[in-house]
Amino acid sequence: MKIGITGTGSYIPSVVTKNEDFLEHDFLGTDGSSFEVENAVIIEKFKSITGIAERRYAKPELKTSDLGYLAAEKALENSGIDKEELDYIIFAHNFGDLTVGKSQGDTLPSLATRVKHLLQIKNPKCVAYDTIFGCPGWIEGVIQASAYIKSGMAKKCLVIGGETLSRVIDEHDRDSMIYSDGAGAAIIENNASGEILSHTSVTHANGEAYFLFFDKTYNEEGCSDTRYIKMHGRKIYEFACTHVPKAMADCLEDSGVSIEDVKKIFIHQANEKMDEAIIKRFYRIYGKEAPKDIMPMSIHKLGNSSVATIPTLFDLVRKGDLEEHEVHKGDVVIFASVGAGMNINAIVYRY
Amino acid sequence: MKIGITGTGSYIPSVVTKNEDFLEHDFLGTDGSSFEVENAVIIEKFKSITGIAERRYAKPELKTSDLGYLAAEKALENSGIDKEELDYIIFAHNFGDLTVGKSQGDTLPSLATRVKHLLQIKNPKCVAYDTIFGCPGWIEGVIQASAYIKSGMAKKCLVIGGETLSRVIDEHDRDSMIYSDGAGAAIIENNASGEILSHTSVTHANGEAYFLFFDKTYNEEGCSDTRYIKMHGRKIYEFACTHVPKAMADCLEDSGVSIEDVKKIFIHQANEKMDEAIIKRFYRIYGKEAPKDIMPMSIHKLGNSSVATIPTLFDLVRKGDLEEHEVHKGDVVIFASVGAGMNINAIVYRY
Repeated sequence: MKIGITGTGSYIPSVVTKNEDFLEHDFLGTDGSSFEVENAVIIEKFKSITGIAERRYAKPELKTSDLGYLAAEKALENSGIDKEELDYIIFAHNFGDLTVGKSQGDTLPSLATRVKHLLQIKNPKCVAYDTIFGCPGWIEGVIQASAYIKSGMAKKCLVIGGETLSRVIDEHDRDSMIYSDGAGAAIIENNASGEILSHTSVTHANGEAYFLFFDKTYNEEGCSDTRYIKMHGRKIYEFACTHVPKAMADCLEDSGVSIEDVKKIFIHQANEKMDEAIIKRFYRIYGKEAPKDIMPMSIHKLGNSSVATIPTLFDLVRKGDLEEHEVHKGDVVIFASVGAGMNINAIVYRY
Repeated sequence: MKIGITGTGSYIPSVVTKNEDFLEHDFLGTDGSSFEVENAVIIEKFKSITGIAERRYAKPELKTSDLGYLAAEKALENSGIDKEELDYIIFAHNFGDLTVGKSQGDTLPSLATRVKHLLQIKNPKCVAYDTIFGCPGWIEGVIQASAYIKSGMAKKCLVIGGETLSRVIDEHDRDSMIYSDGAGAAIIENNASGEILSHTSVTHANGEAYFLFFDKTYNEEGCSDTRYIKMHGRKIYEFACTHVPKAMADCLEDSGVSIEDVKKIFIHQANEKMDEAIIKRFYRIYGKEAPKDIMPMSIHKLGNSSVATIPTLFDLVRKGDLEEHEVHKGDVVIFASVGAGMNINAIVYRY
């Protein structure tokens, strides 16, 4: 049984927000105080760490489920399968459908149901549900799909990752410049030409459970009822550098593939410096230096769209839309992600 | 491989809200107009249809994840397994952690992570995620757990269903009297004495996708930004009576068990008249009348707590806490649910 990806699609929102667009923001510290340095300095430092120069936001009329639908349509077309053959639609997100200017997310009905509705799929046996697993949700959805296929419960699954983080960020928080909107999708099938060779998932929920959390704005005059994404950035950085390389190495060991045969690593676009540090430490486990061009990056122009980064990045590379990166039949690649939970997962995949 | 339930637990919130407590409510129609009849008449009619005389609400200091944790603790104790042996924690809900008086749900981190944190489980290989599948979410979580076990990815899973619907209802909507709070949990294991014989899941997302939806209060003077659970009750009733019996019959056929051998049906506690109509039509497929005592009911005193009804009801019967209902080793029972999606699922289970 070869369970693999037979089609991909992504939707890159059309609103470009550049770093300069934050120059007039009133950034505040966690205690509500202003920073002593100018925004230009804050933004320059932000860019040098995260690599982000601009990011994409969805137009107000498009919600997360709409982005997911647009990505799903392309993935279906790319795979060539009939949409009525799908056994599962799995939608990974963390905040539901969000409306600009409103705080409440909407998950009634599930986003997977909304996508099924928009795709006009009639077959009731196509089961549609949502999964919440932090940023690694899309990889986890692929692992869930592979369990259904392996156990004989499904043959073809659509796995979507979508988010509109621009609607759940505190404009007074510097960290908000990281987040963006987007959606990516893939069709997972049995008897594919590619193959999931191994997978690993872990949840660290002791001291780490609330490294990413929901909290009020740093602006003391802001609405005390509305909650935004907040994070302990330094702790996340240290956690990721310690635990992600090990999870990736465990996954690679399970696959039986040698480190020399890994051609690309599609890592969650969280923060460029952190991603580089993870890859460096991963190769250090094998006493090696990370090969040049091992890590395609989309963060510079797309920011961190949570669950959407990996399927979007993979789709771009597969379709030749990311300069200087290609994948070829037979190449072994690794997908790896880390995020709220704190969750980490990885898949070793033969393309 | 016998995949079955080796432990159950439930948490029944302590605040009892009786039908009389709604006598002073200002109920309004969908157009914001008052009803011509008195509340006492509305409530009497409500009771005669739904069977609900009282329902439970959680104390303000307890959130959905806390209810889930309290149920999970009991399920773990009941199963006798070491919590560190769990491979998965799957938390089914639809609205995240809700705070009294605030509209925004919180799913950062996932509720499954919060439960893992509260249970102080150290093993990182215990993967914690949430699933959204309307009221049938808990059954769907059990089906997901069984896929992991069947495919060799897991041996022991904790599946929780929890909700605090009292915090997401419109006080001006008569339908809000249906909803309640609660949580139920079960341990799913390989080599159990009981066994999942078959399962069925469907999603009807054409015209049905928005039979349950999020919308504003019926009170025109209310906050236009806050959304509440709303439903097209009549359409849901007709949908459920048409499609749930068929899904149950498909599942029973897959199990190879004869209708005569079904001892109990644990159906989602949505509405007594609807549940009775479903069971009646299910037996009519076989040219039979529904046996007396086939359907344990908890709705009279616990209301409709969405994902929590079935694991709670099953826990009560298993532990001899529901009068006149018992299950014995070897009994075949059916679990069946219907809700937002519109989703339906069923499991035929040998106890």
